Parts: sequence; structure tokens; C-alpha cells
Amino acid sequence: MTNHEFYMDLALQNAIAMKGQTDPNPLVGSVIVNDNRIVGVGAHMKAGEPHAEIHALRMAGDLAKGGTIYVTLEPCSHYGRTGPCAVAIVEAGIKKVVIATLDPNPVVSGNGVKILKDAGIEVIVGIKEKESQQMNEVFNKFIVEKLPFVTLKSGTTLDGKIATHTSDSKWITSEKAREDVHLLRNQNMAILVGVNTVIADNPSLTTRIPNGRNPIRVVMDSSLRIPLDSKLVTDQEAETWIFTGENYDKDKKRQLESMGVNIFHTSGKRVNPCEVVKLLGEKQISSLLIEGGGGINAAFLENQLIDKVILYMAPKLIGGQHSPTFLEGTGVEMMRNAVELIDVTVESIGKDFKFVGYPDYKM
Amino acid sequence: MTNHEFYMDLALQNAIAMKGQTDPNPLVGSVIVNDNRIVGVGAHMKAGEPHAEIHALRMAGDLAKGGTIYVTLEPCSHYGRTGPCAVAIVEAGIKKVVIATLDPNPVVSGNGVKILKDAGIEVIVGIKEKESQQMNEVFNKFIVEKLPFVTLKSGTTLDGKIATHTSDSKWITSEKAREDVHLLRNQNMAILVGVNTVIADNPSLTTRIPNGRNPIRVVMDSSLRIPLDSKLVTDQEAETWIFTGENYDKDKKRQLESMGVNIFHTSGKRVNPCEVVKLLGEKQISSLLIEGGGGINAAFLENQLIDKVILYMAPKLIGGQHSPTFLEGTGVEMMRNAVELIDVTVESIGKDFKFVGYPDYKM
Repeated sequence: MTNHEFYMDLALQNAIAMKGQTDPNPLVGSVIVNDNRIVGVGAHMKAGEPHAEIHALRMAGDLAKGGTIYVTLEPCSHYGRTGPCAVAIVEAGIKKVVIATLDPNPVVSGNGVKILKDAGIEVIVGIKEKESQQMNEVFNKFIVEKLPFVTLKSGTTLDGKIATHTSDSKWITSEKAREDVHLLRNQNMAILVGVNTVIADNPSLTTRIPNGRNPIRVVMDSSLRIPLDSKLVTDQEAETWIFTGENYDKDKKRQLESMGVNIFHTSGKRVNPCEVVKLLGEKQISSLLIEGGGGINAAFLENQLIDKVILYMAPKLIGGQHSPTFLEGTGVEMMRNAVELIDVTVESIGKDFKFVGYPDYKM
Repeated sequence: MTNHEFYMDLALQNAIAMKGQTDPNPLVGSVIVNDNRIVGVGAHMKAGEPHAEIHALRMAGDLAKGGTIYVTLEPCSHYGRTGPCAVAIVEAGIKKVVIATLDPNPVVSGNGVKILKDAGIEVIVGIKEKESQQMNEVFNKFIVEKLPFVTLKSGTTLDGKIATHTSDSKWITSEKAREDVHLLRNQNMAILVGVNTVIADNPSLTTRIPNGRNPIRVVMDSSLRIPLDSKLVTDQEAETWIFTGENYDKDKKRQLESMGVNIFHTSGKRVNPCEVVKLLGEKQISSLLIEGGGGINAAFLENQLIDKVILYMAPKLIGGQHSPTFLEGTGVEMMRNAVELIDVTVESIGKDFKFVGYPDYKM
């Protein structure tokens, strides 16, 4: 690890520690070093409060002068509540700025660096860039594309199955893995399932952790087959949004709406996943967790809508030509068209294994 | 790590280093410690040559007296080429014997320990027992059950598929993983596939490593559908054994036999995997690698014939309701009947992941 990486790592750690408390702002951390000594650290802690650099500069005080500042995200150039951080850095007499990644927003990207360079400050960009981008993966997508960051989650056996041929699926993964899923639900603004899952399992899709935030429950239901007595309709634990196609029962729609359910329409007979994602983005939903069956999962993957895949894989074998796998649909024709996951990590979680990776659609 | 574990580990390392050169004998390592100093190490290196303990005792010489000997396997009690090791240990004046695991052969198990204890020597059994047993897993099964140790190997995607719905399977795993498979073939005395694999891929099933040993190629082929021009029939690279059912073409049998292929019969219309394994055992085949499709794999698993599972999992997604998975057949009905793998390990191999585990049939 170089010195730059060492200090940037500390900045990243401070940023990540604020996970969940900066919305709708990104996670940002900062470290100031002068004469080989850390003289300031900071992180953005809450929307409306100072940015990471400002905290670090205040801590450093006069020792900022002539020092090097590490920031996980390009210092801002806009006049918000605290003035542009880039200007504050210039005014503090900083000599060198090391940045993990540029601002993802194309409208302002590079502007902070320009202010710094115009003031004669040396600027280095790209130290631990991937780590910084991954930490704000949801924010980075939403700010640019106005679409939610979509995570596909599934609990499978080693042979890819999510149930036996008789549809028994309780339980595939261990309790530890299922606890982790509740954390995942807590981190996502919405969670999506197909109506078949609702009919088969009558899930509540809430997050069972203390002070947890329940995601909005989104159901793909082409012809409004959802039972009126299902938990998603009756339990009032969180909002339920149903996406339907063109052919639906208008009476059922009125009934559901009178029970507090929101109904949205997409074009076509079957619910169009691209329209679902677009509409969620318009409703300011920046993160979506898909917990579908194999059909739903495949529909989203085939439309290249999945940004991240998280698999909890139990060391079990179910077998069965007709046992459902977590990815069905038609599938690709040739191996060269298979979707590769990149930046894949595996970790043990209880008896199970957690795979995390990012589909590379080779667009 | 305790002292006992530290020294036993060294004995295990010496034993494992001889992998492949001790057949038909097991791997055994030994270390002698006196006054906190290692005074002898040894391993069994070749059938007909001295056992591990003898090598270590010779190296220690007079320093064996009053010392502690570590052996990965219970010292033998039989009069072979070198006399019983247990007696040699007594005669050398060893004070304490630490054993990883007892002899797996029920006919002699415990006899070595009895000789030692009768001579007033302190004996400890069970230090790194699992490691020692795993190192000789093939030997341990064959010596007791007279059946081959059966390893199921498959290369799959993250969604458990082994091909696309159009049967394209080249390539699922990376070159590194495929090289590892050749090592696996080299370590097994026989390799088994179904006739559909022969018809679809016309594989040679040889091990492509320098000085590699080709396994006997075993084909399950109920009605002798194997093409006469397939590599397994014509290439003379290794023996080919075909197992067939009751209804087969007698002319085709004669033709195949005239081309050097061995034909065996099992009862029933379809080849019975239990009879295959039993017959291979009778033919002194101690290790069998199954590289079948989903049907063959399931038939062996359902009959509880698989001792070890090795999966090379590529970080790819194929999808498809009709894309074959590596485990088909009927599958279990309820999750509680799923076959759990124990002692599971995962490691990176190239871009892929290698899972190794042992089915726990809860008999």
C-alpha cells in the first residue's frame, strides 16, 4: 500500500462509517496530512451539515497550510449551505489534493478539480477509485440516470435451485443468511416480487431488525391476481405498490385502492420491467431489491436492469429437472452470450456462502 | 496450535508430499521429538519400502529413547517386510506415541495401540484426526468397503447450469479450472460419463498433463448406443469399459469387443449405478470420478454413491427454464430431504470458484 492509498483508505473508512445517515447525499470522507502527520479527518455526516473536507479543514486549523488533503469524492464547486469546498481548500492553503473519484454528475464533474488547478494546486485523481465508486453505487447511478440501483437477491442451493419440484423452499439458507437479507431490505427503498410469490408464500417483506426501515413493497401483477387478504394488502406495515398490465379487473383495482394500495399501469399484456424501473425512478426510488422467482429475475436480467447480484448459496443439493432455479425465462443461446459477473466476492455467512458481483453487459 | 498439533502438522505435510507414489498403500508421516527438539522425520514413500515410523526412528537413532513419536496413522501390528512398527517403537524406547487416527481396517484397528499400551507407553489418539482421514479418503473407503471412492465433478454457472438451452457448453469455466480437472483425472483410477455425453461431445477423457496417468474410461450405456467411431472406442489412449443393461444389441457388443472395449452387464433395463460401483470395486478400482450430465449425477446421488463433490463455478449467468443443471432427475420432495454438504471449502481458481464438500446422507 502506498502512502496515498493508506490515507485514502482512512478517508474511505470514515465515509463508510456514516452509511445510512447521509441520504440523499453520498458518503464522503477526508484526511489531511502535513509533514507526514495526520492533522485532520472528516466525513460528511448528515445532509445540511458540512461536507467532509470542511470538517477535516476545521480540525487541521492552521496545520492545513502546505498540507495534502485526501478526499474520496471530488470537492464540490457549487455554492450550497457552506460554499464550494474547492474554494475552502484553496483558501486554507492546501498544497496537494488527492481525489478517489470525480463527481459522477456529468453537469459538475471536473469543476472542482478545475478550481483547484486554476489556483496552482497539484491534483491527483484515481486513488482507490473503485472502492469509492462502489461505496456510493446507489447514489452514483441515481444522480446520473434517475433510475434506481437494482440488486437481485436470491437464496439458492449449490445446484442453483430455489425450491424443490413440489415448491418447498423452507428453508434453503441458514438463519444467519436470512438475517443478512433483512439488513439488505433495510438498505433498499423498495423491494420487488412477483404476484406468484405473494400467492404462494404470503410474505410481509418487512425488515425484521430493530429500528429498521421497511422498504416500499412492489408487486408485478399483470392481471391483479393478488389476494385481497394477503399481508401486503392488509398489514399496513409499509406501502404496497402494484404494477399491472393493460388487462386488469377494474373492480379489483378500486377495491385495492380503497385498501390503501397504489396501482400503476405499464403498457402491454404483461408488466414491462423497464417501465417499472423508470417509474420507480420518477418516484425518487433510488434503490430496488428484487426478490423474485426465476421468471421475474430473468425478465430483469434479460432487460439488463440488474446492477448487482447477491446470492446466498447453501451447501445443499436438491436436484430435479423440474425444480425451479433462480434464473429461468429462456436464457441465453450460446455461452458467449452468458452474463459475466465482475468484481465477484465470496464470503462465509453461517453455513452458507454469500456471492456478490456486478453483471457486465458488454454494451 | 498446541505442540501436539504443530508436530502432527509436520508429519501430515511429509505424508501429503508423497501423494501419488505410495499406492496401494496409504500416505503416512511421522515426527520424533525429544527434549523439545525434532530428532527424526519420516514418511512412507513407496510400497515395499519402510513405513514412516521406521524412517523417523532410523533418523533419530539413539535420540529416539525417551522421546515422543507422532504418526498420522496407527502404527501397524502385522509382520510384513519390516516387522510391526508398533514393536519397533517399543524397542526404540519411545515414551509417548501421538496418533492422528486409528487404522481404518476394522480387522486390525486398535491392535497397534494395544501393543504400545501393553508395553507401558502413553498413547494419545485423535490429534488432527480429520486431516489425516481426509488425506487417505480413497484408501480408507476402499480398504473397508471394497468400493471405489466416488467424486462428482461438475463445471457450472452461478445459476447451476451446465449448458444453455441449445446445449452449448463451451466453455463454462476458465482454462485454469479446466487444468485443475486434468489433475483430478490423473488422481482417479476411472472416470465415468453417460453415453449422451459421448454422443454429444465425443470426448477423449484423457488427462492432459505431462506424464499424466489416463483413467479407465467408463460409460453408462443401457442399449449400446455408443458410436463405433467415437474417440473412446478408437483412440487406444486408455481402456474403455462400457456398462449396459439387459437389452442391448449383441452384434454391436461383439463389434465393440473386437475393437478392444470391455462390456459389462447390469440387471434391469437401465444401467444400475450401484452395480457399476460394486463391479468397479471388484476390479480393484479404488477411485472413480463422475463427469456425467444432470441425469447421471442425480442417479448416483440418489443412490447415495457420491462421497465427494467438486464444483467449478463460473461467475456467469445463463438462465433458462430448460437449460440443464448439473443435478436433474426427480430431486428431493422437501427441503428437509436435501443433501447437505459438510466440510465445505471454497477457493478462487482463475476467474472461477472451486467448491469441495462431502455429502452427508444422514444414514
